[in-house]
Amino acid sequence: MTGHEILPHALSESVVLRRATREDMPAIVALLADDQLGRERDSITEPEDMEPYLRAFEAIDEDPAHLLVVVVLGSSVIGTMQLSFLPGLARRGALRAQIEAVRVASSARNSGVGNQMITWAIGEARRRNCALVQLTTDKRRTDAHRFYSRLGFVASHEGMKLAL
Amino acid sequence: MTGHEILPHALSESVVLRRATREDMPAIVALLADDQLGRERDSITEPEDMEPYLRAFEAIDEDPAHLLVVVVLGSSVIGTMQLSFLPGLARRGALRAQIEAVRVASSARNSGVGNQMITWAIGEARRRNCALVQLTTDKRRTDAHRFYSRLGFVASHEGMKLAL
Repeated sequence: MTGHEILPHALSESVVLRRATREDMPAIVALLADDQLGRERDSITEPEDMEPYLRAFEAIDEDPAHLLVVVVLGSSVIGTMQLSFLPGLARRGALRAQIEAVRVASSARNSGVGNQMITWAIGEARRRNCALVQLTTDKRRTDAHRFYSRLGFVASHEGMKLAL
Repeated sequence: MTGHEILPHALSESVVLRRATREDMPAIVALLADDQLGRERDSITEPEDMEPYLRAFEAIDEDPAHLLVVVVLGSSVIGTMQLSFLPGLARRGALRAQIEAVRVASSARNSGVGNQMITWAIGEARRRNCALVQLTTDKRRTDAHRFYSRLGFVASHEGMKLAL
């Protein structure tokens, strides 16, 4: 399905942010697994382990309310995130942008790529007339809180989860 | 649009949880405004103030990923919440249920209605094979944190917002 976003977007001469494709999925799942908190939740040991991710990719990709992006350096995926654009009644019927599943490859950390990704997401949210950008981050990721605070996010809410 | 939920659902002999309609909007907006934190954000003084809410209602109502419900006692709306069912890659491509804009009329607080609403939402999330139910609550709503904790939610995340 076509979204409304203006992509691909060059973050620098060699780094491009673009819509993810099905072919990016192994690299994206590897990024999810290459993470202190995601290692047990998202490791791939058998080929069939990819199937639930591919089904989720189809659901995201076919719904214009969701946008999964990757950041590539040459042919390497070095970052990913999902944006969702959610209608709601509160705050005078404001559309919200929600950012989920932000990952930057360990090789690309502290290079400014994460900052460029979130800055792009904020711009895209503004372009779609969202009144708010929201995300939750695990309280154990203290570096992430500082990172988002520097970008203007305020930790005003408790993020509560119930696993089923 | 038709959702997949099994509604209306009787919470008690006289209290029913059902899908919201366009005709419920004035009562829902009144609930949003009848709230310590929402008073300035969601008050209605002119008829045209309803328009952005009605547009948001249409967007929610036409997308099967979203479900806006009301709880009614006779013909009075005493509660509302929005559920969103969001595909994602993390946690093996888990579908998440997100709860937003939960409000219970001041006349109905401490009656168990809020508990019944969230319990129903958790059951609906389970029925739709969600792996997780998530929500954020303003850190100033300390009563709400205790309420959700009693229902099994864990305040594991920082909820970060950026107003545009």
